[in-house]
Amino acid sequence: MTVISAQKETRPTTTYSPLAPPRRYLFGPGPSMVHPRVYEALSKPIVGHLDPYFFGVMQEIQQLLKPVFGADDGVTMVISGTGSAGMEASVANFVEPGTKFAVFANGYFCDRITEMGKRQGASVVRLEKPWGDTFADQEAVDFIRREQPQVVAYVHAETSTGALQSGRAICSAAHDVGALVIADCVTSLGGIPVNAAKTGIDVAYSCSQKGLSCPPGLSPMFLSSRAMNWLGSRTSSPRSWYLDLKLIYDYSTVSHRYHHTAPISMFYALREALVVIAEEGIENRWERHRRCHEAFVKGVEAMGLRMLVPEGQRIWTLNTVSVPQGVDEAKVKSRLLEEEGIEILGGFGPLAGKVFRIGIMGPLATEEHVQFLLRELKKSLASQGYRP
Amino acid sequence: MTVISAQKETRPTTTYSPLAPPRRYLFGPGPSMVHPRVYEALSKPIVGHLDPYFFGVMQEIQQLLKPVFGADDGVTMVISGTGSAGMEASVANFVEPGTKFAVFANGYFCDRITEMGKRQGASVVRLEKPWGDTFADQEAVDFIRREQPQVVAYVHAETSTGALQSGRAICSAAHDVGALVIADCVTSLGGIPVNAAKTGIDVAYSCSQKGLSCPPGLSPMFLSSRAMNWLGSRTSSPRSWYLDLKLIYDYSTVSHRYHHTAPISMFYALREALVVIAEEGIENRWERHRRCHEAFVKGVEAMGLRMLVPEGQRIWTLNTVSVPQGVDEAKVKSRLLEEEGIEILGGFGPLAGKVFRIGIMGPLATEEHVQFLLRELKKSLASQGYRP
Repeated sequence: MTVISAQKETRPTTTYSPLAPPRRYLFGPGPSMVHPRVYEALSKPIVGHLDPYFFGVMQEIQQLLKPVFGADDGVTMVISGTGSAGMEASVANFVEPGTKFAVFANGYFCDRITEMGKRQGASVVRLEKPWGDTFADQEAVDFIRREQPQVVAYVHAETSTGALQSGRAICSAAHDVGALVIADCVTSLGGIPVNAAKTGIDVAYSCSQKGLSCPPGLSPMFLSSRAMNWLGSRTSSPRSWYLDLKLIYDYSTVSHRYHHTAPISMFYALREALVVIAEEGIENRWERHRRCHEAFVKGVEAMGLRMLVPEGQRIWTLNTVSVPQGVDEAKVKSRLLEEEGIEILGGFGPLAGKVFRIGIMGPLATEEHVQFLLRELKKSLASQGYRP
Repeated sequence: MTVISAQKETRPTTTYSPLAPPRRYLFGPGPSMVHPRVYEALSKPIVGHLDPYFFGVMQEIQQLLKPVFGADDGVTMVISGTGSAGMEASVANFVEPGTKFAVFANGYFCDRITEMGKRQGASVVRLEKPWGDTFADQEAVDFIRREQPQVVAYVHAETSTGALQSGRAICSAAHDVGALVIADCVTSLGGIPVNAAKTGIDVAYSCSQKGLSCPPGLSPMFLSSRAMNWLGSRTSSPRSWYLDLKLIYDYSTVSHRYHHTAPISMFYALREALVVIAEEGIENRWERHRRCHEAFVKGVEAMGLRMLVPEGQRIWTLNTVSVPQGVDEAKVKSRLLEEEGIEILGGFGPLAGKVFRIGIMGPLATEEHVQFLLRELKKSLASQGYRP
């Protein structure tokens, strides 16, 4: 073991300038803007992951998540990973090798959940539709009755397409055949009613950085009593230890049995983001997002642009606007970013180059910010030769 | 869909007081104290996860990790989960169903990696020793020659016992039989030399909240060129999509292909923690931890206490002190927490009630803090009737 004396100091050859992120207006599909109080919470001194104070913060988060998920019964908790970790936790805990797993497939995140199901050894069956479409009640019921799956998954708000999928018919048909239902609520939670219990969802996962307006890094989950009973009676261990929901539940609730070292600062931030939401009132928040969505749609239609998804099937928090003929989507985006610090994203997969994906969430969901965005979008389109 | 009018505001029935974590001296096995500059970085405004600025931060982190890991060749990157996610990423990517997986088992985290290996379908063989012991070179070599495994795992710094395991003989014997080596560096990275490349480690994972003095939430990793080649030639997909290192590598480096939404704020914090380390100089930092460890051992021995682990096999960053006969370990700990805000932890498993686990890391690794801790520990022991 080499011991270096205090005199023989080594200094780095490269110097690093202070961290100075550029100012961005986050109008993409997420992350969204973060409330100053949430940043303040992030920078509070940490305590240990087994400290009674920390367990108090965890418990507050669980309570605060209930109205946001619409969790009249069941359990809410938080996974120490991003929304994709929540997706993997849902699949790895409820889909066993050989499980018949039915996926409603109409976008990228449906494909991701399919891939996760395959990796868990499931037998995956899919009902496919073009990206941007949704499934009608009867289509959903027919598919589930025909396939008789054990687990069903759908994406409530498809971030890749902007389409909102109603879950009532899916959940009801799934329960009729004894199946559990997993719902991806990554882009809906906090901005659109999820109504998990009323809809009949058994397992819902989301992220921290969209409708909740907290930085990314955590995945809030809802588990129905049915899902908890199923989990309690599962005899095999999930292939993932890190995302083993029984162990995470034990750490997060009554016994507080050590599982992993939770990201303390991120939990502080999520707690504060949820308090901000509780103070506004979740129903007021949904309504604010609905109004801003409508104002935005009105504005883009006035510019002669068209929404990809038909009215009534649109996600309030994430708008997909068709790129007009002859306009280079990438140039519009980069002009917005470089000149105004506005982030919007484009489409990918079958929608590459065909849509703009524009999120209006959290602190940016105000009439003023919508009008600012519309003005800048118009300028940027005009610079690419677009005339309504 | 119910639309709530702006007038009909709903207010929460419970009010939440502002987040006010108690002041703690984190002398446990981690999380450790965080530098004020790191908290400042945490609260900087986020950008998107595909923003060029964010990719710049990722790249700086990768560079800054190299001297910390001792990564002369190979690759460094960061997993969006805690140290246990890094452990699972290591196992899930390099251990396939049927892989013969040899584990050096002398503590809790060795058991955890065993459990993860089993969940991946590996055939696990273990060389077991009592908690607190380490493996001599010849024992390691004999075990590996006898078992001819494909992957070998050991824990460099066992957080549950305070024992440091040298990796040279293990790595050399493993390479002789064509095996890859995974090393758990959760409690060593940033406080003790890891020397990944020189030691011959192929896969090393750590956490952000111990020797790096950043809040928990991320897992830095090192992969040797050999490990990267192995990964590149793997034909099956790992069972975990979230922790699929090929996909994370693509997102983190050249192509920056979207995989998940990285925890932006945590990356800011880790970048700043690593800059603080680079400014001090990693060798100076190791030396500071060594000096504080020695001062602490001298102090506890002067009180008549004994270290669990023999000299020369101790972790500088985490000390295990035997609880003296007749002293209630839980009462000593809770008095320290309640009266002075000092967190230390006890043992668990076979060491439950038998040791204190005391970490001296990062900002608390100074002569003044060591003396403060020794004084308070002495008082707390005396209150339980202990006389040296």
